[in-house]
Amino acid sequence: MSRKPRIKSGLGHSTADKIFVRGYDLTEELIGKVPLGDVAFLELKDRLPTPQESVMFNALVVTLVEHGLTPSTIAARLTYFGAPEALQAAVAAGLLGMGDRFGGSIEQAARTLQEAPSAGDLEKIAGQIVDSHRAAKRIIPGLGHPVHKPADPRTTRLFALAAENGFAGRHVELMGLIADRATEAYGLDLPVNATGAIAAVASEMEISWRICRGLAVMARAIGLVAHLQEEMEEPMAPEIWSRAEDEASAEMSSHRD
Amino acid sequence: MSRKPRIKSGLGHSTADKIFVRGYDLTEELIGKVPLGDVAFLELKDRLPTPQESVMFNALVVTLVEHGLTPSTIAARLTYFGAPEALQAAVAAGLLGMGDRFGGSIEQAARTLQEAPSAGDLEKIAGQIVDSHRAAKRIIPGLGHPVHKPADPRTTRLFALAAENGFAGRHVELMGLIADRATEAYGLDLPVNATGAIAAVASEMEISWRICRGLAVMARAIGLVAHLQEEMEEPMAPEIWSRAEDEASAEMSSHRD
Amino acid sequence: MSRKPRIKSGLGHSTADKIFVRGYDLTEELIGKVPLGDVAFLELKDRLPTPQESVMFNALVVTLVEHGLTPSTIAARLTYFGAPEALQAAVAAGLLGMGDRFGGSIEQAARTLQEAPSAGDLEKIAGQIVDSHRAAKRIIPGLGHPVHKPADPRTTRLFALAAENGFAGRHVELMGLIADRATEAYGLDLPVNATGAIAAVASEMEISWRICRGLAVMARAIGLVAHLQEEMEEPMAPEIWSRAEDEASAEMSSHRD
Amino acid sequence: MSRKPRIKSGLGHSTADKIFVRGYDLTEELIGKVPLGDVAFLELKDRLPTPQESVMFNALVVTLVEHGLTPSTIAARLTYFGAPEALQAAVAAGLLGMGDRFGGSIEQAARTLQEAPSAGDLEKIAGQIVDSHRAAKRIIPGLGHPVHKPADPRTTRLFALAAENGFAGRHVELMGLIADRATEAYGLDLPVNATGAIAAVASEMEISWRICRGLAVMARAIGLVAHLQEEMEEPMAPEIWSRAEDEASAEMSSHRD
Repeated sequence: MSRKPRIKSGLGHSTADKIFVRGYDLTEELIGKVPLGDVAFLELKDRLPTPQESVMFNALVVTLVEHGLTPSTIAARLTYFGAPEALQAAVAAGLLGMGDRFGGSIEQAARTLQEAPSAGDLEKIAGQIVDSHRAAKRIIPGLGHPVHKPADPRTTRLFALAAENGFAGRHVELMGLIADRATEAYGLDLPVNATGAIAAVASEMEISWRICRGLAVMARAIGLVAHLQEEMEEPMAPEIWSRAEDEASAEMSSHRD
Repeated sequence: MSRKPRIKSGLGHSTADKIFVRGYDLTEELIGKVPLGDVAFLELKDRLPTPQESVMFNALVVTLVEHGLTPSTIAARLTYFGAPEALQAAVAAGLLGMGDRFGGSIEQAARTLQEAPSAGDLEKIAGQIVDSHRAAKRIIPGLGHPVHKPADPRTTRLFALAAENGFAGRHVELMGLIADRATEAYGLDLPVNATGAIAAVASEMEISWRICRGLAVMARAIGLVAHLQEEMEEPMAPEIWSRAEDEASAEMSSHRD
Repeated sequence: MSRKPRIKSGLGHSTADKIFVRGYDLTEELIGKVPLGDVAFLELKDRLPTPQESVMFNALVVTLVEHGLTPSTIAARLTYFGAPEALQAAVAAGLLGMGDRFGGSIEQAARTLQEAPSAGDLEKIAGQIVDSHRAAKRIIPGLGHPVHKPADPRTTRLFALAAENGFAGRHVELMGLIADRATEAYGLDLPVNATGAIAAVASEMEISWRICRGLAVMARAIGLVAHLQEEMEEPMAPEIWSRAEDEASAEMSSHRD
Repeated sequence: MSRKPRIKSGLGHSTADKIFVRGYDLTEELIGKVPLGDVAFLELKDRLPTPQESVMFNALVVTLVEHGLTPSTIAARLTYFGAPEALQAAVAAGLLGMGDRFGGSIEQAARTLQEAPSAGDLEKIAGQIVDSHRAAKRIIPGLGHPVHKPADPRTTRLFALAAENGFAGRHVELMGLIADRATEAYGLDLPVNATGAIAAVASEMEISWRICRGLAVMARAIGLVAHLQEEMEEPMAPEIWSRAEDEASAEMSSHRD
């Protein structure tokens, strides 16, 4: 019987006594030999990283693991409070908030860089990108910071690592030029922020912008598990809930669900 | 070709010009004729409700639609803040918290009632249930309330409707007797709360305890959509986030994600 | 201490012995008196529906409850297979697929209608909408059907109900004219489909396009609970999984997780 | 104003120009210096791993990253099909299935080991554990495999690494003895499977059983992102959906959502 459209994932398969991940024998070649971040690179790129790629890729995801009490970690804690039987659901609830506003800014910055002309004068291209965003009244992704300070320390660090490891190429340069042009054009201090730096380096590593928010998702899953471990030991959810309610509605506690 | 295990849902199927839901022609027999709550009954019970069943079933789910700012609605609002592109994900995040602590108490109370002997003296059975929970130091589900007051108004109302509509049977009686015995045994005021009342009436309607938290899930999905509509118009998530953070960590705002 | 931004939901609040939903006393005025679909209307519109609004709103959501084995219900069943402890998580997994491709088409169609000029010749406006979509090579939302047949029976029924109940206004008329113009312009049969009909009627009822995918979410939550009840009784997930795998990877069963 | 219950996460905080993760300066001490798996260890254990701990912990999570087309990765692909705007939601849908049946078996095996007496004869303890499970007709977690073969290759590898790195302690020994006793008692081949091996080694590393399914969740988040990258390039969801439907319901395609 012919069944045309095959379903065959290139990620994993196995035989009676072997398991393969991206063609590597899981037990012989990966477990105990290749660390987690490099396996993540293998999953995405279909090959193991070079030493330079390993440093750079691990740096990108490590930047995204932990940011304290964010909307995402708070949502995870509140979800665990209601459903302690399902840790995985609380992690999932936290990841659901890694959308357009957070993970999405990496995606948009990477898209801007990856859709820019692959040849031609970068200063001119940076100017065109800033102009087109201004004309459309769209925010330029990957720039700016809420609190005033010279620069995001993560950007400085990631760009230094990019230079040391051979990833300070065209996309990184373009990201910096966009920041310069935007700072001029708007008369505001608009340095490259952490999401812009991650987007630029990921672009150098030929990670498609379509999957860039996935970097935040995989990294934050780790952080969320740690937040839930802390929540199990010292629950914060009841106090977070209590603070969210106004005094006027304090009586609601009697009917809460 | 033989393909053994058939996959065939009894819920919906269709032909070139007809759609059937539980055997009813969707456009001819349901749309515009049967309201939402009765279609929910049809989905669960495989038949349309009698008028008494319609009143009772709608009463159960209406009780569960809206409870103000709960952990679940707060998690949904925080998720929407991070991922405004996906309303469905924010509703899902809210539903993920309808677990053991909330929806689960309906499930456990219904299980207790449905696993009780279907014949025999109810006073004796109630005593055994209370005794076995005490011996195992397990909370009796469906009883008690956090704030002092004579009784949960939802219980009074649901049990009155049960009496009016022919659902004040053995499970409802047993639930009440369990509350009496528990109040005696613990020396505390332990009336039937709303989850206990819903569990008892759902048991009278022969809704399996295994699906009882689903009543909370389907009802709360409606409430969560309304909360997100309100969040779109007047965002509360930033203030909820801000209150969740201690003054000491206010600086974190600059790095928040 | 002044804390400026108040957090106060208009949806629910309560006192020691009363619970209010949108200003109505839950136990005195809603439970047993107002059915589920009308409470959903109340939640969204901040008032109870007229009899005509009740028929029309219930018709919209009833249309969306059940569509058999869709990607969404399959995802819910597979999730329940792995996590039977958390029914709410399996419903959530199903709802997560109600995005741009499904619920989103209602949203986009409603947006197109609601952003159209509120005055002026409808034929001309319809032509402009079709032309602008063609020029941008964007699909016109709410039109067309995968299988050839004269018309989607749900559209016919919903538009008949709209006429009977006073909702066959400007948005419904515009949706029909867009279908006519598109059919002409593309030389294809492009009738208004169910999502277009729901979008048009929801627009007549002044439901913001921003919340329109929420209609699909709240309705489908009911259907998903019913699918999971069926999955508990007759599990389909193992067979669905088995069919998804190619023969070549049948050995993987030994390592599946 | 006194606000008693403090909310203070020990995981992350920041000042105007520094970000700290578990007390380490993120940019100075972690990015570019500590790889992803070691940061995950830091998040969970509040200290960096020794070289031996690094090898062992990375081995545990690497084992869990990728298992091909499982219910979880299929659910993620189906969700992405319906909601391509929200990659994070498709990952979340996949994680929601990492519950009692999959990640939960690690949790249960770790719980059994961690709740066993910390002193006393291990052979006797193993016998008691097997006997009590048999008496209660409960499955012993962490044993057995669906396909016949001498042993799960992942177990062999993980236990060899445990021996090399100083983690072949009491919990690992007990897990093996439980397998021996169970094989005798049931007259079936019941070797330690991968989840049992992970549970035993995690217990040696003093990772609480309460968080053990979190190891599967954080690892699988990586695999799910890779599956969605593949799904973007070569969609399998339509074919998976098509195969899930019986021939009899093929007509449903016209109404699918």
